[in-house]
Amino acid sequence: MSFTTYRDVLPSGLRVVTVETPHLHTALLAVYVRTGSRHETLVSNGVSHYLEHLFFRGSEGWPDTVKMNAAVEEVGGNLNGVTTRDHGYYYTPIHPAHLRVGLDIIGDMLTRPRLTDMEVERQIILEEMLDEVDEKGRDIDLDNLSKHILFPGHPLALKIAGTRESVTNLTHDQILKHFVQHYVAGNIVVTAAGRVKHSEVLEMSERAFARLPKGPASIEAPPPLTPPGPRLHFVNHDESQTEFRLNFRGVPEQHEDYPALQIIRRVLDDGLSSRLPFEIVEKRGLAYSVSASLDAYHDAGLLEIEAASAPEKAATVVTECLRVIATLCDDLVGDEELARAKRRHRMLLEFSQDSPGELAGWFGGTELFRTPESFNHRADLVDSQSAARVREVARRYLNRENLTVVAVGQRKGLKALERVVAEAPGLPAPEAPAPAAVNGGRG
Amino acid sequence: MSFTTYRDVLPSGLRVVTVETPHLHTALLAVYVRTGSRHETLVSNGVSHYLEHLFFRGSEGWPDTVKMNAAVEEVGGNLNGVTTRDHGYYYTPIHPAHLRVGLDIIGDMLTRPRLTDMEVERQIILEEMLDEVDEKGRDIDLDNLSKHILFPGHPLALKIAGTRESVTNLTHDQILKHFVQHYVAGNIVVTAAGRVKHSEVLEMSERAFARLPKGPASIEAPPPLTPPGPRLHFVNHDESQTEFRLNFRGVPEQHEDYPALQIIRRVLDDGLSSRLPFEIVEKRGLAYSVSASLDAYHDAGLLEIEAASAPEKAATVVTECLRVIATLCDDLVGDEELARAKRRHRMLLEFSQDSPGELAGWFGGTELFRTPESFNHRADLVDSQSAARVREVARRYLNRENLTVVAVGQRKGLKALERVVAEAPGLPAPEAPAPAAVNGGRG
Repeated sequence: MSFTTYRDVLPSGLRVVTVETPHLHTALLAVYVRTGSRHETLVSNGVSHYLEHLFFRGSEGWPDTVKMNAAVEEVGGNLNGVTTRDHGYYYTPIHPAHLRVGLDIIGDMLTRPRLTDMEVERQIILEEMLDEVDEKGRDIDLDNLSKHILFPGHPLALKIAGTRESVTNLTHDQILKHFVQHYVAGNIVVTAAGRVKHSEVLEMSERAFARLPKGPASIEAPPPLTPPGPRLHFVNHDESQTEFRLNFRGVPEQHEDYPALQIIRRVLDDGLSSRLPFEIVEKRGLAYSVSASLDAYHDAGLLEIEAASAPEKAATVVTECLRVIATLCDDLVGDEELARAKRRHRMLLEFSQDSPGELAGWFGGTELFRTPESFNHRADLVDSQSAARVREVARRYLNRENLTVVAVGQRKGLKALERVVAEAPGLPAPEAPAPAAVNGGRG
Repeated sequence: MSFTTYRDVLPSGLRVVTVETPHLHTALLAVYVRTGSRHETLVSNGVSHYLEHLFFRGSEGWPDTVKMNAAVEEVGGNLNGVTTRDHGYYYTPIHPAHLRVGLDIIGDMLTRPRLTDMEVERQIILEEMLDEVDEKGRDIDLDNLSKHILFPGHPLALKIAGTRESVTNLTHDQILKHFVQHYVAGNIVVTAAGRVKHSEVLEMSERAFARLPKGPASIEAPPPLTPPGPRLHFVNHDESQTEFRLNFRGVPEQHEDYPALQIIRRVLDDGLSSRLPFEIVEKRGLAYSVSASLDAYHDAGLLEIEAASAPEKAATVVTECLRVIATLCDDLVGDEELARAKRRHRMLLEFSQDSPGELAGWFGGTELFRTPESFNHRADLVDSQSAARVREVARRYLNRENLTVVAVGQRKGLKALERVVAEAPGLPAPEAPAPAAVNGGRG
């Protein structure tokens, strides 16, 4: 590999990760924080995301936000913030010769925010949230709806941006309290990837985050069991297409079954030759697109299959998806197909050498929760999975009881959809004695 | 710059463009064809896009599409096709050591397609088209609606995918005729960018496209004048947000006014410090996002400003957008702001050295229509624009008569929106004697 990774811990507890790629002409600066909607309650829901927005309202050192943003943009950057369910990050591409500008500004934003303009920002967030609801304010976002029923009563069920009610009621005190608790050295990883030098990144980070107080990493309540399926949650929304997601509870990345799930994901959806696009789109023309992905937290994981189709075809598309999934539980994946999944996994990691963003996420983002493995180690883990092992893991997770379907669309075709999900044709019964699939975080 | 570009014309007339970036670990293969919806009629509308889909149904050399796709995916690729209004392209990332696999397959696809499975593919396309319409089949896509009224009676007004009616009626003969006419050597540019060698790309292209018949580049009817504004086209659609686009007819990339328009675009929207995001989002919290972009054909261009907001705020957002635009016509852009726009333009081109996709588009895609300029030449053109020149160009194009607004949303707030567009407050009158803005393709 043409990059070198470094990791150091400053006396404050702040972790600094550098990925040196001297062959590239860019750099990516990213600061990861272990705080998101799963560190909230029903009442404080949305506070992590609200706080993320307020950081962009200026800091003590940069009270004028036009100047703050302009300084970063002047050196090829674009300040950005993202909040997820279990973490947040602040990042910018940046000209490698001007890394200090970006680090100084993000450092000031995150250690001395002014937290002003709360009311203007509240309006912006309420506006942003409209994307996830219908014209009557009801949830229509597949991801929000899925998490809500997969993790009942747990903070992972909360929406990242919060609810209209919680955001309307959030106070300055609540936001300040959240900031003081979570933006501490032990809860943050500073990362630079690209044409940068670790010694310089380390020195600059120490200076830029000198004001960051010491403090521990956030802790999270373990996720609950998902209620046994097969279950269907349907939301009526009169759009031209019905969208749906099949959720199977899986495991986190470090679990011993995860590499086999990575292969299962690739066999299902990794290019036009993979099974779902071929069977659903190309062969039968049932939907315009279908996708499978793995969603992982440090203590839980999901295999998600998503598609959209004309309402009257939705039940057929789900039936076909289940049939394709069932073949993984019944038959061994062929040698060529298995070899291709492994080869692509390794090759795409090789391509990531040219992407500061992917390198920062792998080595910096992961560091929030655990020590990231090398590309080669991960590729070796995937390579070591046999066809028998893949089938064993498919049977463990892709069973009837572990299926939760969420659909949003017209009522047309709903009865058929209900029947298909209730039958879950072809899927195996869960393993005795208890469904292993819902026990996350064993690795 | 750390890349070298090469261009050769094979005896058949096929152009081969290579961008060698020996520092990267990937390659991007792209074949550009000068055919899209502007080469169609009302009756044949959608034929370019339909044909693009059918290429993926296999070729004489690769009748089994799973094998065809698998062969490309095996070497890190993903076959993709895109159809636009004035061209189409077929591309895949690929491991640089296996370029030949990708070229051979795309070459076979585009010279010996089987054009089978028309009916399955028709269903897929009709499904795909649902995205652009409401549940009653009416157009709700801002881009389609805009082009429809900006280029009345001209093929640029046609939708890329066609209409439900035209796609339902397209015959195999029509598709074959379109293929024979447009997929000829003089109408195609083969491009490879990444860790590749031009001598090899040339040799491989010659072999892979040996069956490509000679033939000329497509020709296009010049675009018509846009009817004088200010005009508003509104479509009722009961979503939570009202979306709208302000269109100003501009000029193509090679026009002498284009570099000033590039600066205008960056001053309006190029990071959080730029004027539209600051005024609309950050300062007033009127919308969650707003963007400005340039859309260019070889003989026409557009400056587009797009936003989405709560329905009752739509008129206010449009008013503010117009106010921000008006300042560009009234006042000189400040020195710092102008310098930042130029500097960012040059720096982001520098970053493109690491992106095979951007390099292929710049040097290969442009080649379909004209000789692409170097990064430095383009950056010099932008650098040479003075503040006075930018204001002069703003006045020429951002005037009342040149404004066409398209909005999709709830009826709530419509009256106010109509008033604002009719008044177009702050915008200058068009220059005497005739609005220069609507005369495209002068460069």
